[in-house]
Amino acid sequence: MSFPRALRPGPSTRARITEVNRGVRRERRDDLATEEPLEIRVQAGGERRTLAITMRTPGADFELAAGFLYGEGIAGEDDIASIGYCTDEDVAPEARYNTVTVRLRGDHLPDLRGLDRHFMTSSACGVCGTATIDSLRDRRPPLADSPGPKVSAELLTLLPDRLRTSQSVFGKTGGLHAAGLFDAEGTALAVREDVGRHNAVDKLIGHALLTGEVPLHDRVLLVSGRSSYEILQKALTAGIPVICAVSAPSSLAVALAREFGATLVGFLRGDRFNIYAGQERIL
Amino acid sequence: MSFPRALRPGPSTRARITEVNRGVRRERRDDLATEEPLEIRVQAGGERRTLAITMRTPGADFELAAGFLYGEGIAGEDDIASIGYCTDEDVAPEARYNTVTVRLRGDHLPDLRGLDRHFMTSSACGVCGTATIDSLRDRRPPLADSPGPKVSAELLTLLPDRLRTSQSVFGKTGGLHAAGLFDAEGTALAVREDVGRHNAVDKLIGHALLTGEVPLHDRVLLVSGRSSYEILQKALTAGIPVICAVSAPSSLAVALAREFGATLVGFLRGDRFNIYAGQERIL
Repeated sequence: MSFPRALRPGPSTRARITEVNRGVRRERRDDLATEEPLEIRVQAGGERRTLAITMRTPGADFELAAGFLYGEGIAGEDDIASIGYCTDEDVAPEARYNTVTVRLRGDHLPDLRGLDRHFMTSSACGVCGTATIDSLRDRRPPLADSPGPKVSAELLTLLPDRLRTSQSVFGKTGGLHAAGLFDAEGTALAVREDVGRHNAVDKLIGHALLTGEVPLHDRVLLVSGRSSYEILQKALTAGIPVICAVSAPSSLAVALAREFGATLVGFLRGDRFNIYAGQERIL
Repeated sequence: MSFPRALRPGPSTRARITEVNRGVRRERRDDLATEEPLEIRVQAGGERRTLAITMRTPGADFELAAGFLYGEGIAGEDDIASIGYCTDEDVAPEARYNTVTVRLRGDHLPDLRGLDRHFMTSSACGVCGTATIDSLRDRRPPLADSPGPKVSAELLTLLPDRLRTSQSVFGKTGGLHAAGLFDAEGTALAVREDVGRHNAVDKLIGHALLTGEVPLHDRVLLVSGRSSYEILQKALTAGIPVICAVSAPSSLAVALAREFGATLVGFLRGDRFNIYAGQERIL
């Protein structure tokens, strides 16, 4: 690496950079959003497997791992026995904080074929948006069970500022996505940041899982960027009924929200926003 | 799906939405950025394998597949015999345009273990930024061979507008990332859009690969969002010496640029920008 690196990386990294303003150069120090790989392992009894390697911003790593497993349908709130960083002697010290092992109750790993299918292999009839929705329906996301909260339009317009003021690392680096969980009165219950949009949501849902709060039937999710298939899939799996984004949704995000009865808001900026699905929850 | 869907999806999708402005609701039609899965298959002789399923915006699918294979070190310019959509009878018609098969010359698939390692399993000493850089070095990105172009600071500040004016789908949907390839005089040679940042870069590099232009030693890349490990890895593999982003770089993006001698520019907005690496190429 071309700048000094801590043994345990933090959420931001100092670097010497050159700022150019109207052609004038100035050397200064800057804070970069840290990006490092995280290997997520799952273990039960004597069986262990690497599930994923994701590029993430260090911090809330256990929540990230728990949220990832939950979102993939591998582990629910009662399945996790413990979560820890790697302590293997044969792993280099600087890599130990980049490896998280989730130990599950029970003597054997659960069936992980669903994960393989999700990641790498196609369904019998080929991949398409409809097949993607069908595959999520097979996992029975808990949303349809719950009417969810009703929130006022005025309250929604306050949430982006509340998210931003909780983004400590973004303030320094300008380089992180955020996801925030709010109650129906607009109070920020938890905010997580990451270089990866999906990781920020995994951290948030992992936090809720580890504190016994899922399914999140009375909560509002706000993400700082766009909403896509992956964001909706994670939010729906956690039972979140109201999903808001500062930027645009994709077609598949809208299709998923409509299919599973969630409220989807986009372009939430200033006094205005768009409702793409479930407008009955917006007063 | 909850809105009518074409057999062959286009880059944008019409939907009826509700706009809320200062509490006043109005129904209107809107264009959403299309997001659909794409299955990328590779075939040689009688052997075939699914390499990846990526969520992407339809359009330039063959370029996306070619760029993906190139970025992963699986196929170079002389290895691709043909690229086509799926024509299997047992694949549903609406899925055929979501499956692309790249046929390679030769009778056998190349060694794909590197891909597995890249995606899912850890190196002997564990995962960390340094190991990630080492792994890319093993693949010998061609950048160090070339001094690359020198570009003026003033020219750089013109590129974001030139990228934006080429973003036809973003103009309609506000929901797409873009990547543009420029020559040293600032002429936009190609621009590609996608819901995924990395897909836009794969499409751009795939285009260059299929038109016989790689390595791209005298080109400038501009991406509309942030620069991260994945963007740098793809750009360096294609030999692009000057990489610019409208938003922030991650720590690993900066480390990769410094390690492999590339120029990395960030926060390219208005009259100003930051240089994170390789400032000798900026006049």
